[in-house]
Amino acid sequence: MTSLTVGLGQRSYQIHIASGLLDKLPEQASARRVTIVTNEVVAPLYLDRLVNSLEKVGAGTTAVVLPDGEAHKNWESLNRIYDHLLASRCDRTTPIVALGGGVIGDLAGFAAASYQRGVPFIQVPTTLLSQVDSSVGGKTGINHPRGKNMIGAFWQPRLVVADTDTLNTLPDRELSAGLAEVIKYGLIRDLPFLEWLEANMGRLMAREGDALAYAIERSCANKAEVVADDELETAKEGGRALLNLGHTFGHAIETGMGYGEWLHGEAVAAGTMMAVDLSRRLGWLGDVDVERAQRLFERAKLPIRGPALGTDRYLDLMGHDKKVIAGQMRLVLLRKLGEAATWAEAPQTEIRAAIEACCG
Amino acid sequence: MTSLTVGLGQRSYQIHIASGLLDKLPEQASARRVTIVTNEVVAPLYLDRLVNSLEKVGAGTTAVVLPDGEAHKNWESLNRIYDHLLASRCDRTTPIVALGGGVIGDLAGFAAASYQRGVPFIQVPTTLLSQVDSSVGGKTGINHPRGKNMIGAFWQPRLVVADTDTLNTLPDRELSAGLAEVIKYGLIRDLPFLEWLEANMGRLMAREGDALAYAIERSCANKAEVVADDELETAKEGGRALLNLGHTFGHAIETGMGYGEWLHGEAVAAGTMMAVDLSRRLGWLGDVDVERAQRLFERAKLPIRGPALGTDRYLDLMGHDKKVIAGQMRLVLLRKLGEAATWAEAPQTEIRAAIEACCG
Repeated sequence: MTSLTVGLGQRSYQIHIASGLLDKLPEQASARRVTIVTNEVVAPLYLDRLVNSLEKVGAGTTAVVLPDGEAHKNWESLNRIYDHLLASRCDRTTPIVALGGGVIGDLAGFAAASYQRGVPFIQVPTTLLSQVDSSVGGKTGINHPRGKNMIGAFWQPRLVVADTDTLNTLPDRELSAGLAEVIKYGLIRDLPFLEWLEANMGRLMAREGDALAYAIERSCANKAEVVADDELETAKEGGRALLNLGHTFGHAIETGMGYGEWLHGEAVAAGTMMAVDLSRRLGWLGDVDVERAQRLFERAKLPIRGPALGTDRYLDLMGHDKKVIAGQMRLVLLRKLGEAATWAEAPQTEIRAAIEACCG
Repeated sequence: MTSLTVGLGQRSYQIHIASGLLDKLPEQASARRVTIVTNEVVAPLYLDRLVNSLEKVGAGTTAVVLPDGEAHKNWESLNRIYDHLLASRCDRTTPIVALGGGVIGDLAGFAAASYQRGVPFIQVPTTLLSQVDSSVGGKTGINHPRGKNMIGAFWQPRLVVADTDTLNTLPDRELSAGLAEVIKYGLIRDLPFLEWLEANMGRLMAREGDALAYAIERSCANKAEVVADDELETAKEGGRALLNLGHTFGHAIETGMGYGEWLHGEAVAAGTMMAVDLSRRLGWLGDVDVERAQRLFERAKLPIRGPALGTDRYLDLMGHDKKVIAGQMRLVLLRKLGEAATWAEAPQTEIRAAIEACCG
């Protein structure tokens, strides 16, 4: 088992990554009782095993089973969790355990952040995307009809348990979506990892266990470093914002298409290609760099072009993104492969050109 | 002007208390633009003056005007704030200013805590209750049909501006409700202040400015000390929980009657008398102490008895209160006048007897 630490002082926590962890939870998961939040797809696969394991460490359990999908990351689902917590009289000491992907983690995490002004939270991510990204770092929230993740809180889990076996049941499309965030770590801050991905993308797509475990571990190690340095994304330059490579464009795709049409990772892949193209237009990347990024996404069976929403619509939707500060659009771009920077000076004409070149 | 500091390290902030502050805001209120959240009763009285003052310190303003009352401290009102913030493209740097009483402060504060995972927050309390209690300390939230303040967050303001002139337009009933929390500080931790209140209740009820200003200052000083020591109410003994004297009983009254029937301060007064009666039954207070507490509430024209909900209903509603930890009902009681303690050992029979003696 690999264990990494997210160093946040008193709120530090461990990420455990291994095959079979669902059946042997670490001691830190013990509690008198817990509430599990999961969805209709994950529950038949893993809920019983998690319940049994929690009982082994001494916890009574109740569960909320929500409908699946980004379209349900909204107030209605959040309220179903609140209703359950109140009906079963959960108090401030009752941990909430998220069993599922990024949507479940974000929903359960925001419920944990806001129920009785905050209760303990444990992440048991079951998708590649949530294992490499969303379960670590404490970002929680729900979507608003006007924008993705607009309502939420920073609320760190006290434990993350990633059982790599759960990836065996993951649909191909979701495996690919997770790889978008894996590739991101290479692009923004870890060139050796990017090279490893170029050498091992075939093994990852074939779901070889040791390759997946290494990719998850390396991704989490990168994320843990960034989060420990800039927990609340307040750094003026760099910091946590760099994890959002492709996300401003990507959120426009997700919102413009309606939540759930594009998976988050798919939108990030196409959005990253827009950011990569814009970085080339600014003279920071060469054609070969663009080609390498594109080739990795293609081998991961990810889209490299966004939908034809129209450039004005893209810009309008991007204007709602949280990365807009004081009216300026701050984008994450690549100075070179393996090094990202936030940049508010990109000319509007070049942003438009990058969108037009990479969509439709 | 009196200025107090709530000492919370990097998140420390000042409370300014004085007549006429609405027309001369402190420098810390300056911003490029701000969103004001207020209600239909307060807006005609004070919104224009606040807008003018904010413009003087350089801020463009927009405002959300909500319906008045505890019944509106719910998801619908919160969502109206979110809609406004998104429609006017507020970003992470745009402060939210709460202009109003406790309901507006709680709603606007939770919006500030959760919009884009947190934006700056400024309190401009206009009721006695919010000036002495709810605007200080960072508790924010909304009600749920199953329980008061069940959804929320700790989110500290960066500034509190209490203009004592705003109390001139406060209805008598709300002045009284605020005095319930003022009396509370005397009861739980400040016997000299309790004695001052006994000597000056007539001046407070006559709204003498210097008496009100002193009561607000002394209340805020007590609250600031408690909050600085136990920001997140995690102290095992004492700490912030002591501020909840009468609140577990009081919340049962508020929820049982339907939000808005009883003002919070009224429910706290009746609930405090239940806690005082229970403290007497445990042998901690004498009949004279009970008499002194009762007399102060009576002179403040506050109810000293709860409604006849039935004892079982009280206990059921109290079981939903956040002060229930791991199934045990922890109540705030008085060891003596001027000294409170949390206590989970009160026999159920005595709790029932105290409720029965103090309601109907």
